[in-house]
Amino acid sequence: MQFTLWKNVNLHLEETTMMPSSIQQRLGDLRQFMAEHGLQAFVVPTTDPHASEYTPLHYESRKWLTGFSGSAGTAVVTLYDAALWTDSRYFIAAAEELRDTGIQLMKEGMNATPGIAQWLANQLRQGDCVGLDGMVNPVGVVQQLQHDLMPAGISVNCQWDPFESIWENRPPLPLDTIKVHPLQYAGEKAEDKTKRLRQRLSQRGCTGMLVSALDEIAWLLNLRGSDVHCTPVFVAYCLVAEEEVVLFADRRKISSDTLAYLSAAQIRLQEYSQIIPYLQKHPAGRMLFTQNVNASLYYAVEGHDIVMGDSPIAEMKAIKNPVECDGFRRAMERDGVALVQFLRWLKPAVQAGTETEISIGDKLRHLRSRQPLYQGLSFDTIAAYTHHGAIVHYEATPGSDIPLKPQGFLLLDSGAHYLDGTTDITRTIALGEPTQEEKFIYTLVLKGHIALSRCRFPSGSSGTQLDLAARYAMWQEGYNYGHGTGHGVGSFLCVHEGPHQIRMNYKSAPLSEGVIVTDEPGLYIEGKFGVRIENMLLCVPYKDSAFGTFVQFEPLTLCPIDTTPIDFSILTETERNWLNEYHAHVRDRLLPLLDDPDDSQWLIAATQPI
Amino acid sequence: MQFTLWKNVNLHLEETTMMPSSIQQRLGDLRQFMAEHGLQAFVVPTTDPHASEYTPLHYESRKWLTGFSGSAGTAVVTLYDAALWTDSRYFIAAAEELRDTGIQLMKEGMNATPGIAQWLANQLRQGDCVGLDGMVNPVGVVQQLQHDLMPAGISVNCQWDPFESIWENRPPLPLDTIKVHPLQYAGEKAEDKTKRLRQRLSQRGCTGMLVSALDEIAWLLNLRGSDVHCTPVFVAYCLVAEEEVVLFADRRKISSDTLAYLSAAQIRLQEYSQIIPYLQKHPAGRMLFTQNVNASLYYAVEGHDIVMGDSPIAEMKAIKNPVECDGFRRAMERDGVALVQFLRWLKPAVQAGTETEISIGDKLRHLRSRQPLYQGLSFDTIAAYTHHGAIVHYEATPGSDIPLKPQGFLLLDSGAHYLDGTTDITRTIALGEPTQEEKFIYTLVLKGHIALSRCRFPSGSSGTQLDLAARYAMWQEGYNYGHGTGHGVGSFLCVHEGPHQIRMNYKSAPLSEGVIVTDEPGLYIEGKFGVRIENMLLCVPYKDSAFGTFVQFEPLTLCPIDTTPIDFSILTETERNWLNEYHAHVRDRLLPLLDDPDDSQWLIAATQPI
Repeated sequence: MQFTLWKNVNLHLEETTMMPSSIQQRLGDLRQFMAEHGLQAFVVPTTDPHASEYTPLHYESRKWLTGFSGSAGTAVVTLYDAALWTDSRYFIAAAEELRDTGIQLMKEGMNATPGIAQWLANQLRQGDCVGLDGMVNPVGVVQQLQHDLMPAGISVNCQWDPFESIWENRPPLPLDTIKVHPLQYAGEKAEDKTKRLRQRLSQRGCTGMLVSALDEIAWLLNLRGSDVHCTPVFVAYCLVAEEEVVLFADRRKISSDTLAYLSAAQIRLQEYSQIIPYLQKHPAGRMLFTQNVNASLYYAVEGHDIVMGDSPIAEMKAIKNPVECDGFRRAMERDGVALVQFLRWLKPAVQAGTETEISIGDKLRHLRSRQPLYQGLSFDTIAAYTHHGAIVHYEATPGSDIPLKPQGFLLLDSGAHYLDGTTDITRTIALGEPTQEEKFIYTLVLKGHIALSRCRFPSGSSGTQLDLAARYAMWQEGYNYGHGTGHGVGSFLCVHEGPHQIRMNYKSAPLSEGVIVTDEPGLYIEGKFGVRIENMLLCVPYKDSAFGTFVQFEPLTLCPIDTTPIDFSILTETERNWLNEYHAHVRDRLLPLLDDPDDSQWLIAATQPI
Repeated sequence: MQFTLWKNVNLHLEETTMMPSSIQQRLGDLRQFMAEHGLQAFVVPTTDPHASEYTPLHYESRKWLTGFSGSAGTAVVTLYDAALWTDSRYFIAAAEELRDTGIQLMKEGMNATPGIAQWLANQLRQGDCVGLDGMVNPVGVVQQLQHDLMPAGISVNCQWDPFESIWENRPPLPLDTIKVHPLQYAGEKAEDKTKRLRQRLSQRGCTGMLVSALDEIAWLLNLRGSDVHCTPVFVAYCLVAEEEVVLFADRRKISSDTLAYLSAAQIRLQEYSQIIPYLQKHPAGRMLFTQNVNASLYYAVEGHDIVMGDSPIAEMKAIKNPVECDGFRRAMERDGVALVQFLRWLKPAVQAGTETEISIGDKLRHLRSRQPLYQGLSFDTIAAYTHHGAIVHYEATPGSDIPLKPQGFLLLDSGAHYLDGTTDITRTIALGEPTQEEKFIYTLVLKGHIALSRCRFPSGSSGTQLDLAARYAMWQEGYNYGHGTGHGVGSFLCVHEGPHQIRMNYKSAPLSEGVIVTDEPGLYIEGKFGVRIENMLLCVPYKDSAFGTFVQFEPLTLCPIDTTPIDFSILTETERNWLNEYHAHVRDRLLPLLDDPDDSQWLIAATQPI
């Protein structure tokens, strides 16, 4: 899944647009709240108390307030004015969605755009107060705002959640059941994970840690939930102290099985709402807090012995254990079977003239859902036909949906959760005879995909060191793509997982044995088509030499890559060999698992050596 | 020139080793100085007041005191003990050179090695005082030491230079003449450079800057000197204020021509020793100080309005203007002629059996020195035969020098200064029939060299993004090299110039049009041979596309690459084509400049298509 974007913005607004009048009503209600509480401005960000990128609906206050549906943006409302900051991905969509609401669009990254603090300093007067909800703002953000507004004599107060009173029919926090993630898939007991975590904390001079990120809690305790769309996490905190592990979650979500598991694993249970009083009562020595801890929590225990730093859990979680690696391999087989069934069905169905972007997404989901251990999609399917493929964050809606014809490219980025692994794959499929331009662009992307997949490198290299492999061939021709090349993937967890990634911008997180990363270069020709080819790769040993420990990639994804659009004049023998070997591997792994002879025949044809 | 190492360590010690007894005498003198001044320890680093990497002999106190000749290291002496910290490049050499001196070797980067502050805290007692010379310690280093020793109750005093009294026959500061670097080579007047600098300072809210780095002063004022071995800089400071530009230098070094130039360019002259009093008397508004400013200077003006930050001059200097670019091209022609003369001469001379590593270096220097505009070597020639080639920082000495035979690899890394440009080239030459292993390793390095040279990329990319090009092929086989892949080169200035570089470790400095960088991958097979192939590359425009501005490299260096050791079974057609095109380019540029028909014939043969 293409991952500059953590969520898809809805570019086609028929279904979701609010009436501007209801937005103005909501802004009015917020202003009344502000006036009652002595606030001259209010800041509404896009996250939850856990700094999640996907949040439960309960926390979508910014979307509710402004009508802007993008995944990134901050609304700032004063008594007389309102503005929304978002990035270039959303300039067009936000302009449409904010039209006639009175909310000014602030284009982040443009020279003329003031920062939020700068804008506030201009709008407000000395002695004024800016409100925000400390629960949904990381402490670093609040401190920066305080620092920036201090010279103007403007204070910041973070004790308010106006949406609790003004948002009628606000979705409650979800009550979905928290389930145990069996050891046969997790590969390591929660007790052993917390033991390793304590060792790491001890190396950093800490006796405990407040775990606030939802996927870190799920991973650490071998629990899963369904509180967030396409993401098997649940709303909770976890305190790992010297003598105890405490899970803070709504007791109504805990089944008797889970309760028994917690008890056996010696994990204490406390109400979610008790996190602050509990921390205040139990200062557990020197505690590690991560940067994403929310301001309310941080200020509640400010006097305690707290060290701010990166989470050791992110690194631990990134290295998949042998059981998880094997789980991914098995999940890929089932996912691959569904993909073969889908691809075999696709072209005749398109020929028949009845399929659209949405209908084929539904078909693929249906085929995946029949596979054992299926748990749902890992993200909303991106099925983007012809010019829609060039809109990097396109998601088909009933209003945008177009019929598929036997011509042009279909870009299909999809994935699923299985109990033993999460998948994320992109294929670009020629539905008819590709043009020379389509072939050229497709082959540049394929060359990049292959060069990265073939790459061997010193263990511990950063993704930025490898990124060139995916871009070298297209840069030779003056083409590039704006998104990252690869991201981590959770084991029945978030489809985007850090800390490592492969991208042009530097990130120091190392790639080493056991790390999973996607390989997804793309090219987008505006108004015409898009190409992206994505496999998931597992980092495995290559060799130890006098020059260090080298690792290489094992492609996990099992699905043919369309060879129709290849421009053979620019494919090297090495690249051809790689593709033939990959296809032989896909065929060997999937063929024994196909029941339908038509599927088998299709797979054999699709994996013929070129 | 291979550039993890800024200077070559002398691995063969016959010529330079001090008698341990004289070292002990010197340590004794220092301890007496310490006792007289109430100091319980003294720290002796390896730099000068300008944070230079090559320094005038006057500042080689650490070498004088300890006998250790490496380019990096810090000596710490207490009343009863002494230790020297250096990095892995020098572990072997330092152990030999420090033997029987009583100075303990501290291997930096090893887990068991304490830091300097940690070691001092163990050796000293509360109330003790550590001395150092603030003139030769950047302020950041002093502040860090103060911070680290404060918990132990140990103070730091940086007002001492004991070597002024204890170092008998200390070399004085050099009095070499400062010369004007003519506009026909510099390409931009000093007035225009300072004007641009003031604009950049103003963008950063500063009214002036103290320029402390010697090469920045030389570049900014279009002046050159010869105070430092192989480096055309002179000892000075420069103050760029709102209303004036002041050069602080020893007046005895200024010829009447230079004086006239300074006057015409409205550059005021002050004595070098007046820098501190002058700054104290003339607080020039908000001043930019770079991180490398020495502690004495910083503390002398501590109350002034000072902003610490990176030098804008480093970035300005890195972008060569059209006159400088053309100068480099012309300098490369003359350097190429000398190299062709040398290479044509080499094999017959080796056959005759009279040549050694040192003698061929002398020959090459002689040939270069006959070229117009020659100003000297840009660094000490590295001529490393067979197993010496695997010692990355090898420099032949009379004690290590070995005869060359018609077999094995000769690694030759050399360069010269010309008035219009500085050169730096490495070639690896097969003196006889190469072995299969030699061919394989040579070709892996050549593949890396070619891939980087061919690379096209978005303007502004960092060197870390490109580094993979040079390593991809060798990583495939589990080989690697520990040094960087490329460094900037000054225009008749330092052969190593920042801020950009190409290396595995991240550095954010951008590569864009006008930047010069070396391309010098290598492989070193211990006890056998080393291979490095280095050209200098100029970053030039490629194309503007919908995907941004792309740049590419123009190879500046003009010298055939030995084709004898190529393993053609692993060379691609693209690589072969690149080499043929490069050789055609070298031939076209150099052939018209050769007088001797034997040289012409050699060049034609050496550049035959493969």
